[in-house]
Amino acid sequence: MHAGSLAENLTQFESMALNGRLNLADGHARQDLTMGQQRIVESLPELWAEATKRPAQEIEREAQRAYFELLGQHSAPDRVLSCYSSSVAMEILARSVATVTGSVALIHPTFDNIPDILRGVGLALKPVEEGALHRGEVDPELLRSVGCVFVTTPNNPTGRVVSEACLRRLAAQCAEHDVVLTLDTSFRGFDPSAHYDHYAVLRESGCRWVVIEDTGKLWPSLELKVGWLVSSENAGLPLATIHSDILLGVSPLVLLLVRRLAEDAAAGGLADLHALIGTNRAKLRQVLGDVPDVSFPDEESVTSVERVHIGQRSALDVWSALSDDEVYVLPCQKFHWADPDQGRHWVRVALARPTAAVEAAAWKFRAALVDGR
Amino acid sequence: MHAGSLAENLTQFESMALNGRLNLADGHARQDLTMGQQRIVESLPELWAEATKRPAQEIEREAQRAYFELLGQHSAPDRVLSCYSSSVAMEILARSVATVTGSVALIHPTFDNIPDILRGVGLALKPVEEGALHRGEVDPELLRSVGCVFVTTPNNPTGRVVSEACLRRLAAQCAEHDVVLTLDTSFRGFDPSAHYDHYAVLRESGCRWVVIEDTGKLWPSLELKVGWLVSSENAGLPLATIHSDILLGVSPLVLLLVRRLAEDAAAGGLADLHALIGTNRAKLRQVLGDVPDVSFPDEESVTSVERVHIGQRSALDVWSALSDDEVYVLPCQKFHWADPDQGRHWVRVALARPTAAVEAAAWKFRAALVDGR
Repeated sequence: MHAGSLAENLTQFESMALNGRLNLADGHARQDLTMGQQRIVESLPELWAEATKRPAQEIEREAQRAYFELLGQHSAPDRVLSCYSSSVAMEILARSVATVTGSVALIHPTFDNIPDILRGVGLALKPVEEGALHRGEVDPELLRSVGCVFVTTPNNPTGRVVSEACLRRLAAQCAEHDVVLTLDTSFRGFDPSAHYDHYAVLRESGCRWVVIEDTGKLWPSLELKVGWLVSSENAGLPLATIHSDILLGVSPLVLLLVRRLAEDAAAGGLADLHALIGTNRAKLRQVLGDVPDVSFPDEESVTSVERVHIGQRSALDVWSALSDDEVYVLPCQKFHWADPDQGRHWVRVALARPTAAVEAAAWKFRAALVDGR
Repeated sequence: MHAGSLAENLTQFESMALNGRLNLADGHARQDLTMGQQRIVESLPELWAEATKRPAQEIEREAQRAYFELLGQHSAPDRVLSCYSSSVAMEILARSVATVTGSVALIHPTFDNIPDILRGVGLALKPVEEGALHRGEVDPELLRSVGCVFVTTPNNPTGRVVSEACLRRLAAQCAEHDVVLTLDTSFRGFDPSAHYDHYAVLRESGCRWVVIEDTGKLWPSLELKVGWLVSSENAGLPLATIHSDILLGVSPLVLLLVRRLAEDAAAGGLADLHALIGTNRAKLRQVLGDVPDVSFPDEESVTSVERVHIGQRSALDVWSALSDDEVYVLPCQKFHWADPDQGRHWVRVALARPTAAVEAAAWKFRAALVDGR
């Protein structure tokens, strides 16, 4: 039996990697600080003093504005609930949705804590295949049978982005069927094609909507992050009440940190980050590129994770061989929450790491793939 | 209509206070940093560097050990899940409990996010009156009808502590009826009588148990805190799985900060904190002491909140008069989750504030009470 067969979900696989030598498992940002980011870290004692002196609400609004503006979300409303993380936002969303409906249409595949949290609060799930979604073929019959449609964009692990035209069509369909449209945009920072103003499109549609934004994927900020739960006035969900059951507010120090990191990103840091991810992706593809039956089908993806198709090899076998060597990646079965078999020949590699770590892991990965033919 | 009648729960009352001039509403720590704590804040950039270099698990264990040792919990096990806050731990506990039972016996009164989270995941609640609990009179009939008993100790807002003898008796009853005993010990740092080794008592009893510990009430750490979800091997709850649905881990920077603050507390900081709370409590009692029909029935309480009985005055009227003056406290109805009327003549005042703030608010409070006779 593989140790991997003991893991109940992707996060438990990630957890095994936390103390490993080469952790390319989780999608958290673990690259080195840039010079600009290092200066912000050096200023933490001053940010602390600032946080004790200024009104919490003001600090919160500034952080939101800096982050939303950085990613092109100029029409984002003021009705934003700050959470400790996007998964806490997800939990609050799920509990809220469960008060108004029993079933949700959910993109397939996607990171498994989304279906697990939705199911955990008692919701029944119906898969929406990613391909069909992007072709604009969401079945009206499906929409009549659910109270909420949940879409991750850019998706994790595929990196696929819902285009403006596609979002417009989907939002119109949701408005027509009075279904809440929820977007998880946690990875959008990596992909400029996800920087069009989603809030303008959602507002125009008149549909009921919720968006989960996440500062946690971009910067190596040691898990100091914010998940934002943004919603339309007509959402009709008890988000604010359930939020207040779980927290009074996130740390003003974290909000000041996020604001500074967003400002640094706007001043060039985001382009540097995109370049780093591009370098790491190219390195991985280059090292593995000539291994027989290995391919990178997510050609357009620019997010901080990369799926590798490993031919007829088993993802769990490869995972196991690599973990013996203290190199950690994710086997993809559990992303395919409605049909795990679809993921059995795929591995996800995290790229938000120092380039040297990605390169070292890529060579070990290559050896495991060559041995595992 | 009072603005206060718009608040659905105590956290929403606290939220209104966040930008107020004198916020004595929430039980978070908002006193000034001591010299020792200030030095720790100054060292944040070094702690950041340390967090990037050392294994996450090691940092986590050290923080737990430092905190548990500080508060006398020498028998605390290694089976501890770190959460962003005690309320996130509470949410995970509630979702876990809901998979094994439909009803919970809950201490009455207590802070309302506990009943709200338990009800929010579909659990039915049965009140256990605090007085009866402390007299050891928990009805066996009640224990036969629930899957879990939930007790806050020291309780919020009353400050009452479950004694070692009482815990031993209660744990034995829970073992006998195969009921999970859950303790929320978030306020224990303030009260040495809650520093006996709870884990030793729980283990000896053989009952199934969970404890929620919280670093968030003691130190003015800008909401950088940890909620710990500690459980017995035989708890029989899916705590680890649901925890992994919601988080991979808390920030190692926060864990290092908690460790340093715990070490500083052990070296004298905790005694200083107790002295500050004592001074603030004495100040409040002194300023209000001769107002007719005003009393402080929680005579033994040494936690960072104080209940004031305001005679026949209405807590909402007093709250309203004070909030017009930008002074915020909590009216106590919602603590009495099973019978709000019991709280209508009580107000809770937070004491973890600079003494000058408590004193200024006390004088305003006095004026409102004298006017409101």
